[in-house]
Amino acid sequence: MAERIGFIGLGQMGQAMASNLLRDGYSLRVYNRTSEKAAALAGQGAKLVLHPIQTAEPGGIVITSLASDHAVESVVLGDQGLLDRLGPNGIHVSMSTIAPATARRLAEHHQKYQVSYVAAPVFGRPEAAAARQLWIVLSGPQAAKERVRPILAVLGQGLFDFGETAWAANIVKLCGNFLIATAIEAIGEALVLAEKNGIDRVRLADMLGQTLFACPVYQGYGQRIATDRYEPAGFRLALGLKDVDLVLQTAASTQVPMPVASLLHDRFVAAMAKGRSDIDWAAIALGIAEDAGLERGNR
Amino acid sequence: MAERIGFIGLGQMGQAMASNLLRDGYSLRVYNRTSEKAAALAGQGAKLVLHPIQTAEPGGIVITSLASDHAVESVVLGDQGLLDRLGPNGIHVSMSTIAPATARRLAEHHQKYQVSYVAAPVFGRPEAAAARQLWIVLSGPQAAKERVRPILAVLGQGLFDFGETAWAANIVKLCGNFLIATAIEAIGEALVLAEKNGIDRVRLADMLGQTLFACPVYQGYGQRIATDRYEPAGFRLALGLKDVDLVLQTAASTQVPMPVASLLHDRFVAAMAKGRSDIDWAAIALGIAEDAGLERGNR
Amino acid sequence: MAERIGFIGLGQMGQAMASNLLRDGYSLRVYNRTSEKAAALAGQGAKLVLHPIQTAEPGGIVITSLASDHAVESVVLGDQGLLDRLGPNGIHVSMSTIAPATARRLAEHHQKYQVSYVAAPVFGRPEAAAARQLWIVLSGPQAAKERVRPILAVLGQGLFDFGETAWAANIVKLCGNFLIATAIEAIGEALVLAEKNGIDRVRLADMLGQTLFACPVYQGYGQRIATDRYEPAGFRLALGLKDVDLVLQTAASTQVPMPVASLLHDRFVAAMAKGRSDIDWAAIALGIAEDAGLERGNR
Amino acid sequence: MAERIGFIGLGQMGQAMASNLLRDGYSLRVYNRTSEKAAALAGQGAKLVLHPIQTAEPGGIVITSLASDHAVESVVLGDQGLLDRLGPNGIHVSMSTIAPATARRLAEHHQKYQVSYVAAPVFGRPEAAAARQLWIVLSGPQAAKERVRPILAVLGQGLFDFGETAWAANIVKLCGNFLIATAIEAIGEALVLAEKNGIDRVRLADMLGQTLFACPVYQGYGQRIATDRYEPAGFRLALGLKDVDLVLQTAASTQVPMPVASLLHDRFVAAMAKGRSDIDWAAIALGIAEDAGLERGNR
Repeated sequence: MAERIGFIGLGQMGQAMASNLLRDGYSLRVYNRTSEKAAALAGQGAKLVLHPIQTAEPGGIVITSLASDHAVESVVLGDQGLLDRLGPNGIHVSMSTIAPATARRLAEHHQKYQVSYVAAPVFGRPEAAAARQLWIVLSGPQAAKERVRPILAVLGQGLFDFGETAWAANIVKLCGNFLIATAIEAIGEALVLAEKNGIDRVRLADMLGQTLFACPVYQGYGQRIATDRYEPAGFRLALGLKDVDLVLQTAASTQVPMPVASLLHDRFVAAMAKGRSDIDWAAIALGIAEDAGLERGNR
Repeated sequence: MAERIGFIGLGQMGQAMASNLLRDGYSLRVYNRTSEKAAALAGQGAKLVLHPIQTAEPGGIVITSLASDHAVESVVLGDQGLLDRLGPNGIHVSMSTIAPATARRLAEHHQKYQVSYVAAPVFGRPEAAAARQLWIVLSGPQAAKERVRPILAVLGQGLFDFGETAWAANIVKLCGNFLIATAIEAIGEALVLAEKNGIDRVRLADMLGQTLFACPVYQGYGQRIATDRYEPAGFRLALGLKDVDLVLQTAASTQVPMPVASLLHDRFVAAMAKGRSDIDWAAIALGIAEDAGLERGNR
Repeated sequence: MAERIGFIGLGQMGQAMASNLLRDGYSLRVYNRTSEKAAALAGQGAKLVLHPIQTAEPGGIVITSLASDHAVESVVLGDQGLLDRLGPNGIHVSMSTIAPATARRLAEHHQKYQVSYVAAPVFGRPEAAAARQLWIVLSGPQAAKERVRPILAVLGQGLFDFGETAWAANIVKLCGNFLIATAIEAIGEALVLAEKNGIDRVRLADMLGQTLFACPVYQGYGQRIATDRYEPAGFRLALGLKDVDLVLQTAASTQVPMPVASLLHDRFVAAMAKGRSDIDWAAIALGIAEDAGLERGNR
Repeated sequence: MAERIGFIGLGQMGQAMASNLLRDGYSLRVYNRTSEKAAALAGQGAKLVLHPIQTAEPGGIVITSLASDHAVESVVLGDQGLLDRLGPNGIHVSMSTIAPATARRLAEHHQKYQVSYVAAPVFGRPEAAAARQLWIVLSGPQAAKERVRPILAVLGQGLFDFGETAWAANIVKLCGNFLIATAIEAIGEALVLAEKNGIDRVRLADMLGQTLFACPVYQGYGQRIATDRYEPAGFRLALGLKDVDLVLQTAASTQVPMPVASLLHDRFVAAMAKGRSDIDWAAIALGIAEDAGLERGNR
């Protein structure tokens, strides 16, 4: 396997993806802020390095899987020389979910070093990452995408290319999360309507998930909401608000009114005000129930 | 096959369903307001009758598949003696999509004649009806449901029972349509955001339909909206508004605020004001595009 | 004073208005469903009658001030012969706040008897009625309006004519109530924003009422909301919802999307669900505060 | 007159205010980015200076009336030594409409130099400033407010103190603009409802402005909207959106859902998308009319 890859960020997602790359024979230099997390991968043959810059080699590929815009920016911009070391022909594959505006800034910065910036955010939880079931959304320079395509194919079950604009994939990722949040709100409203009309909401959620909406989003959130299980969080409510707000900012900057996103913003803000920032974002459904005068026990 | 069935209403849906019943050996007396539509079924062995009351026999089963609340009410209440003739042990299976309040009124009226009222609205288009692929939602008296279950099994691929309250199935049907309308709005907003950010909206719709939302609603409406195909209408926009308003009325009468339904109401009213009542209800997406300053050609 | 007037409905508003007419020398035949209320007026010289029809004389004027659409309809339509007795040249001045659709129906019915229907709903509370400070909105046939103008001038401080369409004045009345409800919502949101930012909300309400919004609606509701005084109700919350819904119905029937009215609908429905139907409609502000995580004591 | 005052920013508002101070005998050192604007004031006795820092003297008072957060920050933070020169006992009275978050940052920065930061945004147009009819909202350290109170009394007809938190006055200003924007939206919706029901909207606006809403905001915007006059702009639509977004940001940061502000955001974004950024913010009413299928000529 010719390519040697640098990998920065070994959270649950990063660890699963790096492990799959090693298993398929890729040679990896890995870095994580806290080194314990990297240890497990060493057993699989990864080379642990002490500084992000050491993951890179001239003209090589570095993948980042980091938790926030800030983390990506501090690794790429703040740190001495990662891009300088990658240099011409180098590729940075950024798999984090970050703001389109951040991606744009990053891409412009990469150009100064002739490094290609490829955005490759994913849909899927850690279990999906481990099982190579991620959906990967892609944008960036054509040649760079061609080169990383076989690598990304190792990580997921599908790869969707959205062209050469660096931040396109980040907007697509936001669109996906917006649609999920809307589905949560709609399910929440429908189930409260059902409940107050004496209809079994678990059965209703079941029916919808087996018929019109036989897809994971409706099946999973339908059950969560029908049974009011919001812990442990699959995706924290505070992060849900952050994504909805990124949608609204991106929309405003391109003059797109998105009334459903605005409504979601208000719903999430209310949930935050009620102290629900750390439970699952589907917990906005509690606010829907409360607005209908329903009590929801200890929450 | 013991049961002989009366069947009233031979629109596209009714014709397909009646035909399947005949094919499975049921003996049918059919009635339609305009008799031409009934002719084809005669060839399959149906007995054509000239008046709705003639479809019924004491203690028998009558199925209605009619276009509006008014049509159902005028057959059942207005006409001389349908319920009187059905009488004790008689069952009326109402497959029309009607208002829960109408269903309630009808059920109460049936009780006076000791006729069981079974609500059985369906999800699915005429093609699904022909292919026995309907989803059927059911509510009403337990014994009556047991007796009609084998008959309904002939018509669809799945039967979902929502208890004994007569109008429960009608509310469930409304919940389904509310969720579809919300999905349309959300897809519409997401695709305009994508478009104004230079992202290929057909590709985005494809991706969503293959990944997070791999279910018919998102696949079908995603493509419709991404390509702005609103004719011929699968479901007329004016009917979409009617259903959204039924949702809002049912919600208000049980004190459930449904802000997304309210937003949909406004969206549909705007589309009506722009003369779009007869094209597909997914055409509310045109308003979303216009609000973002996009022109949509001749519509 | 030539005109003799029939007066039906002696609630707080009706009593105050009838009393002012007597004081100015008009001769009145009054009717109220419960006769005690009429007694006080008898002392002022009013003639009490036992049936609505007795308030009318051929070609005369009858004023109604009743609590609901139903009450107006039952007096006019249900009762034997009020319109028949009024007959050609007769005028019915309907001062109740009723639905435009009801007004339309009534007007059409009056035409059959050649009675003129004049809509004359008012803005103002009982104290304003007593002090002749009502604002009266007017619509109906020109000649009839001319004839009743001096009578209405006795009752209020201003008369606003909105043409000959019978129900125009009712729509104008709804517009006014819609604007008040919106002001309540907006004040509620602004005061919660202020409160959560450590700003004295009474002072803020004061300032607004002395400067930009130096008018009774903002002054009165600003103080109510800033001090959370919702009892006794000046206008019951349930009636507020009724009016918002009339706005939405009128709007829908003429294809006007009114998103603020929709938002108000949801706000009022939530307040109803929380058991607030009988306190002042400004109590929707409690829901705004709760959505922001604020507790409001015993309510 | 003991106090000598520095005055920075001579736009229409600043010029009018500075002129009134000179007329009342205050000694002024004035600075403006483009010096022509300062010339007129020189004729009234103002001393023109070439650099903002020269307006200040140790322990003195400097007033700024600038167009944007950026302008205030660059004068105060970017420039060499304005705060350093003002020093202990110095006061900066910031009359610009800026973001609360900016005001907070500025206040913190002032503390380092022991300069008091007094926020004093105003309600009113240039004509009101010339006529000393401004309403001035005030917040900041008590002693500093006492000292500047006689100066501000020269500029407006009313002074409203909102405590010692530096940015409180800025939030109050935003609340005021939010309420105005909401009134615009509500008037817009009501007038379209009236229009589509055949009611004269100029007459309706008149009536409202004479009765329930006899205050300048409803009178002025009522007429503007009823006659569709959006040029010249009294307040540019783009600035309206900026203020609505500041409201939303401030609200989100203190966890206050403000659904009407969200709705206004969408309305303003749609107006921007339709190219209306430079006409009066009341032009959001055009969107309301368009949503109801009305054409509005050349706009």
